Amino acid sequence: MNTKSKIKLAYIGGGSRGWAWSFMSDLAAQNDLYGDIYLYDIDHQAALYNEKIGNNIEESKDKWTYHASQNIGEALGDADFVIISILPGTFEEMESDVHLPEEYGIYQSVGDTTGPGGVIRALRTVPMYEVIAKAIKEFCPNAWVINYTNPMTICVDTLYRVFPEIKAFGCCHEVFGTQVLLSKMLAVMKGLEKIDRHDIKVNVVGVNHFTWITDAYYKNIDLFPLYKEFADTYYIDGINAKQGEKHINNSFTCLQRVKFDLFRRFGYIAAAGDRHLAEFCPGDWYLKNPQQVTDWKFGLTSVSWRKNDLLERIARSNRLYSGEEKFELHETGEEGINQIRAIMGCGDLVTNVNIINKGQIPNLPIGAIVETNALFTSSTVTPTMAGPVPKEIHSLVSRVCANQQIITEAALSRDLNLAFTAFLNDPLMKLSTGKAKELYIRMLNNTSKYLTEYDLNSIR
Amino acid sequence: MNTKSKIKLAYIGGGSRGWAWSFMSDLAAQNDLYGDIYLYDIDHQAALYNEKIGNNIEESKDKWTYHASQNIGEALGDADFVIISILPGTFEEMESDVHLPEEYGIYQSVGDTTGPGGVIRALRTVPMYEVIAKAIKEFCPNAWVINYTNPMTICVDTLYRVFPEIKAFGCCHEVFGTQVLLSKMLAVMKGLEKIDRHDIKVNVVGVNHFTWITDAYYKNIDLFPLYKEFADTYYIDGINAKQGEKHINNSFTCLQRVKFDLFRRFGYIAAAGDRHLAEFCPGDWYLKNPQQVTDWKFGLTSVSWRKNDLLERIARSNRLYSGEEKFELHETGEEGINQIRAIMGCGDLVTNVNIINKGQIPNLPIGAIVETNALFTSSTVTPTMAGPVPKEIHSLVSRVCANQQIITEAALSRDLNLAFTAFLNDPLMKLSTGKAKELYIRMLNNTSKYLTEYDLNSIR
Amino acid sequence: MNTKSKIKLAYIGGGSRGWAWSFMSDLAAQNDLYGDIYLYDIDHQAALYNEKIGNNIEESKDKWTYHASQNIGEALGDADFVIISILPGTFEEMESDVHLPEEYGIYQSVGDTTGPGGVIRALRTVPMYEVIAKAIKEFCPNAWVINYTNPMTICVDTLYRVFPEIKAFGCCHEVFGTQVLLSKMLAVMKGLEKIDRHDIKVNVVGVNHFTWITDAYYKNIDLFPLYKEFADTYYIDGINAKQGEKHINNSFTCLQRVKFDLFRRFGYIAAAGDRHLAEFCPGDWYLKNPQQVTDWKFGLTSVSWRKNDLLERIARSNRLYSGEEKFELHETGEEGINQIRAIMGCGDLVTNVNIINKGQIPNLPIGAIVETNALFTSSTVTPTMAGPVPKEIHSLVSRVCANQQIITEAALSRDLNLAFTAFLNDPLMKLSTGKAKELYIRMLNNTSKYLTEYDLNSIR
Amino acid sequence: MNTKSKIKLAYIGGGSRGWAWSFMSDLAAQNDLYGDIYLYDIDHQAALYNEKIGNNIEESKDKWTYHASQNIGEALGDADFVIISILPGTFEEMESDVHLPEEYGIYQSVGDTTGPGGVIRALRTVPMYEVIAKAIKEFCPNAWVINYTNPMTICVDTLYRVFPEIKAFGCCHEVFGTQVLLSKMLAVMKGLEKIDRHDIKVNVVGVNHFTWITDAYYKNIDLFPLYKEFADTYYIDGINAKQGEKHINNSFTCLQRVKFDLFRRFGYIAAAGDRHLAEFCPGDWYLKNPQQVTDWKFGLTSVSWRKNDLLERIARSNRLYSGEEKFELHETGEEGINQIRAIMGCGDLVTNVNIINKGQIPNLPIGAIVETNALFTSSTVTPTMAGPVPKEIHSLVSRVCANQQIITEAALSRDLNLAFTAFLNDPLMKLSTGKAKELYIRMLNNTSKYLTEYDLNSIR
Repeated sequence: MNTKSKIKLAYIGGGSRGWAWSFMSDLAAQNDLYGDIYLYDIDHQAALYNEKIGNNIEESKDKWTYHASQNIGEALGDADFVIISILPGTFEEMESDVHLPEEYGIYQSVGDTTGPGGVIRALRTVPMYEVIAKAIKEFCPNAWVINYTNPMTICVDTLYRVFPEIKAFGCCHEVFGTQVLLSKMLAVMKGLEKIDRHDIKVNVVGVNHFTWITDAYYKNIDLFPLYKEFADTYYIDGINAKQGEKHINNSFTCLQRVKFDLFRRFGYIAAAGDRHLAEFCPGDWYLKNPQQVTDWKFGLTSVSWRKNDLLERIARSNRLYSGEEKFELHETGEEGINQIRAIMGCGDLVTNVNIINKGQIPNLPIGAIVETNALFTSSTVTPTMAGPVPKEIHSLVSRVCANQQIITEAALSRDLNLAFTAFLNDPLMKLSTGKAKELYIRMLNNTSKYLTEYDLNSIR
Repeated sequence: MNTKSKIKLAYIGGGSRGWAWSFMSDLAAQNDLYGDIYLYDIDHQAALYNEKIGNNIEESKDKWTYHASQNIGEALGDADFVIISILPGTFEEMESDVHLPEEYGIYQSVGDTTGPGGVIRALRTVPMYEVIAKAIKEFCPNAWVINYTNPMTICVDTLYRVFPEIKAFGCCHEVFGTQVLLSKMLAVMKGLEKIDRHDIKVNVVGVNHFTWITDAYYKNIDLFPLYKEFADTYYIDGINAKQGEKHINNSFTCLQRVKFDLFRRFGYIAAAGDRHLAEFCPGDWYLKNPQQVTDWKFGLTSVSWRKNDLLERIARSNRLYSGEEKFELHETGEEGINQIRAIMGCGDLVTNVNIINKGQIPNLPIGAIVETNALFTSSTVTPTMAGPVPKEIHSLVSRVCANQQIITEAALSRDLNLAFTAFLNDPLMKLSTGKAKELYIRMLNNTSKYLTEYDLNSIR
Repeated sequence: MNTKSKIKLAYIGGGSRGWAWSFMSDLAAQNDLYGDIYLYDIDHQAALYNEKIGNNIEESKDKWTYHASQNIGEALGDADFVIISILPGTFEEMESDVHLPEEYGIYQSVGDTTGPGGVIRALRTVPMYEVIAKAIKEFCPNAWVINYTNPMTICVDTLYRVFPEIKAFGCCHEVFGTQVLLSKMLAVMKGLEKIDRHDIKVNVVGVNHFTWITDAYYKNIDLFPLYKEFADTYYIDGINAKQGEKHINNSFTCLQRVKFDLFRRFGYIAAAGDRHLAEFCPGDWYLKNPQQVTDWKFGLTSVSWRKNDLLERIARSNRLYSGEEKFELHETGEEGINQIRAIMGCGDLVTNVNIINKGQIPNLPIGAIVETNALFTSSTVTPTMAGPVPKEIHSLVSRVCANQQIITEAALSRDLNLAFTAFLNDPLMKLSTGKAKELYIRMLNNTSKYLTEYDLNSIR
Repeated sequence: MNTKSKIKLAYIGGGSRGWAWSFMSDLAAQNDLYGDIYLYDIDHQAALYNEKIGNNIEESKDKWTYHASQNIGEALGDADFVIISILPGTFEEMESDVHLPEEYGIYQSVGDTTGPGGVIRALRTVPMYEVIAKAIKEFCPNAWVINYTNPMTICVDTLYRVFPEIKAFGCCHEVFGTQVLLSKMLAVMKGLEKIDRHDIKVNVVGVNHFTWITDAYYKNIDLFPLYKEFADTYYIDGINAKQGEKHINNSFTCLQRVKFDLFRRFGYIAAAGDRHLAEFCPGDWYLKNPQQVTDWKFGLTSVSWRKNDLLERIARSNRLYSGEEKFELHETGEEGINQIRAIMGCGDLVTNVNIINKGQIPNLPIGAIVETNALFTSSTVTPTMAGPVPKEIHSLVSRVCANQQIITEAALSRDLNLAFTAFLNDPLMKLSTGKAKELYIRMLNNTSKYLTEYDLNSIR
């Protein structure tokens, strides 16, 4: 049709061997847009591979041209959209983030958002995001910017603090997974099979990976009473969300026991995987030790697993590049492409995003990055008035939010002492001031390659 | 289809000879819902006429059964939806509201929302709305309540103050008219014909009848630069919104000169008819005297016109009742039925509503009734974060908002002295304290039949 | 002097054998006021004793007449001031509050404000305060009401929720003790001896017993740099505040190590005794087990100590009543009488109070009871704009504040399930949902004599 | 005494022939401070005169050394306090500000704060204040800065916007005058003679020159009922505040009729001279034409009067300089010196100041400059929680506040079109857009000498 719109899209981290392929699939599958995709990556070789992989996709050929670019200015110049999805540092640094605290009795199931690992990861990520934000300001100030990198909240916050006029938001599929679980619930409890998660209408409040559903409806059926029954039924044994299951191995899955326990405690539906939720709660609740984790039926995602997984993805990249494996379009379950379409005026969309709090959650700080629903329509992304975090969980959520704001501010001002107050205030932290400082310094040293703008000797 | 949902709807003011017929047409035209419509009116005869008129509509027969009811409890009992659309008092009282101030040099183009007439009308309306709110609390506390009566803001505010848990909102088509004007603009300026007003995406802030559009897009085209050109072009001569024209005679139409002048003053698109807009501005601007009104090319709607118009509508009611005239379905341009459908889970909708400010307009008082967009979806109406009233117009809007809050509070506490402070603060008020009090008392006396719960001797 | 003002003061809990005597001493020592003191107590015998003790005070005879009253209406009728200082329940209930959690590994140093004990104490106190608030509304709605009972925040909150127009505030001397410590610091570090604590000017933010000083000056000397040095010097060994020491035995004293550790963590001066401060922090920090408490050089105040202390105070009451011991005026260090004088127009005063947050701490919830400075002047108590809780400690303070609001609300609505969410969210809570519920129910049963308006079987 | 503190004070506008002399008198009269006063003025000759006048004051000799300085850096360098009291432009510009609008039927009684004249004056003042703020940031960032220049609000706002960490506040004696009136009231109505205005305790809300008293007490007597009686008694004839009268000629005095009328309208005590109050109200109320002004018994202060007065003050300057006239200390009624003493730790003080709204007036915008009481103590100026502007007057005050914020912002960004929106929104503005623009441009041209950084051709 002749109303197809042309766009230029820049992909920072475009050498990705995973998420990028999902996005390529979604780009190929839609029919409203066409244009150019610029792939920028510090691993330029990986970007070149993806350029070829992208340009080889049959269904995409009349729509998109992929370009690997070594020049961030070229990639961003006058872009309409920017995707950011990078790994800040390598799995070596992540190994320290996740596993060194275990020596001190602190266990983290993910370690990329919160916990001691989340703090350290944020410290090395923020300077990278400052560079990106400045480049966007210079080369494409009017672009819409979609972030996928963790720690989500802090990445988006950095973009806004460096370039306040930026049109950025962060995207995450954890809430989608909870909608899928609610769909599963309707199947299991009511025999209503195959309900599209989009038809499960939820109100979302919180911060990324620690989001909560305060209302859920299918048609005009209130899902909360049913969820209570569901949680009570499966509290002990747990249940697999199945239909929505995308993760490939044990350490990513969970059986919702943490989610059910949180519901029984507080009466609201926590809307992320149990691995994430557990990390935001006091350490004694779900992450006291590996046995407790096993009892709660979720997993500690080890970095060695991630390293192995990367090898497999590199192998697949080679196969796709060489043509040995054909690129198949697949249902990714992501919303990025629909968000872009809605912004281009191709149909309204309501979905959850991470964006500046202008009052959509009145009892979290104005200016913090929060996750709620937003309305996407022509050239606009407008959060809905999600309302306050319910009082029962406000203290849990607000402490996380406060800590994230400190970390961003500390990282931007390269103030390691301020960052340490967030380290101490983390829900998983149970060490004395002295022991905590020892761990902090060891972790910083392990990631020092990416902390060149900080003064590690400044720690008091 | 078997998923059609059954509802009970109560219509307060169901003897209406105008808006009720539009609503009947919309009810008949939709295909997702069926059930019972209870018509309640203090003029029971009129409700009986509408019962028959409704039950005679061909297209409606398999969907709706109309019942005129003399008992508000019966009408409301377990209703899913309540429509309120009444005339508070008669045209006799309105005659005084609108025209008595003219003796004092104060001209009002509508006189039902603001101005001296708006204050007096509110004072007699609030006690009626207290009765309605209490009845809803008693008979159908879970119903969704849609208000159409003016003064809109004060009516909705009263519902919430009497029954804070009420699920109420107010509906008004003035913004729709402005979308139609923008559609006309695209035709006139760009040759884009017949663009549906729903495809004109606007962000709305303000209070009812004094709403402002702060962003407007068609697809991803920013309509503000074009509107500037449009306003400059038609500033002197004005332009008729035409396509969207629903009003039947001169005193209701306008040629947008006030709207264009406000844009040239402040840079935002006022989103109501000029007759309404003018009344919220200082009197010297557009309503100094009848000649100035003529120069601005809008009209002073006289109550004598309304009286004549009523006679015509009564005649038509007789024809419809007797079958002399056949009820024809027509495109009403109203959103009420779509809102109901969305709440029932039959498709999301974004439209403007009047509802409690929980922060969607951060620089108007929390708790005030404001008008912004809201997302209607399964069992939920959620305002979008419309954002602050722009600073250029904040003083204009906030004074209106403050005054409306005083009037509601004064009426609820039957405090005529407090109400007088709002009377004095009205933008059209230019009298000395003494003259203003004289006018106030005369107007109150003229509407005293409906002020039996007030003490007119209490005025200091 | 002829301008002496006459007042009527009602003392709820007027049989007190401790604080009442301090107050009598202060009343006798001042020279601006005279009048009648009504002592009301559920232990009327104790009130009668205090009546005689009061009327026997030599220095008081031309100023005050004490009346023990069995009728709360008589005591309160047209009172100008009301003092509330009661023990909610007996030491039997307090024994369970403080010590039963120890079976579950939860140690509390005070147990009357926060922690599991604080929650349970609040649940039995709120209904008593509802009775008091209603009586004040009935018998002396214009009185100024000063609360001394713990849990302070929840008591004051209850007064306001039951009777929103009440002129109430809560008084606590913990901040005074910190001013005394700063005075000691000036002596030890700077050789400035005997500086009156009133000349140490501090800005206070927080909630009762978890208050923080964000600015401290003596003349125009900033005390923060000095405090850093002070905290570093005495961090290991601790230091006794001495000059200000009023407490009589070990389990009440502390050597400031917790206070110094909190300063080294977060950079602000915690302004309460270490026993209180420790209870508001995560349990692993200072209250993991008795040994850790000893290491931090503060004490767990046992209820058996309180019981013994009471016996001694009863003995003293007998001696004072019989005249065997003469009542000696003494410097009490309390501000109650100065607050009353200021309100009567006898000299302005700035001191810390617990009162409704109207924005004096912008980042704690509006409506919560917070502790800041206030200006006391003729018929007015106005908080100063204390400013936000610093970000480093915001998560610590806001969680406490949120929990206290839940407890009040739960108690007022007799909702034991809602109260349980606060129990779970308490910083000291480390139990699983199941174990926590077991403890909760046992504790409730131990205080059930005072929970007759709750339904203990309602717990899910 | 040996505790006298040494300070350096810089006086911007130190050539003043009026206010500077009052300040010199106050400096000489106090006994806690001594040091150096640097006088900086663009009229260096005038500063030199004041240097000699100051150094000749007998009572001042052992305390203060005055230095006229041509170098702002020298004057400000490491100053402890900065006073700013300048005339922005000359009386030529002021002539246009005040009198040109009269050609268009707009009468201003002062014309330096609000009204068309206030807007234009602000536009030329802001760039001067930017220079001053930057110099303070460079030369004495820790100084306390006291502003006396009008437009007060906009001057203080500019200081904070340019240098957000500045410790600045604005001082104005209009509220003092209202306290004096209340003292007069006690004499006239109650026979209580010579009550010190400091013993009249008032709560102040609003913006400079449009402040309102919401509570007033003498001892514990509520002064509002008495003021009602007072206002009713003197409404027609007016009354002179007398005791407090400092102004020297008719066009400065008023007989409180505007103040009484505002009280009778809204129930609160407007706390500024009637000349100021009238300008903030809709033009029809008190400033319709010169006859109406006469009827209300206040005066239009003509600039020709100011010019004559200046000649007299220059003559006096010559006499004081030559020694022909001896400098006599006098009771000035100003608080500046007491504020400085309080900040230096020489005694607490509560008085009204103009400072950033951090929530002390919750219903005016956070960040706006508002006037309320503040507590002055060691190194601290803390507003008290003044509370909301009462609803009856909120619309009047908030429109002024909104307009002032626009003007500051427009001036800082040199945006004459934005400033024009404030010009249009001014309460005195009654012209059509076209006529208003004509007046605006003529006024701008008359002050163009001071608008060199603006582009007058940019006006659309």
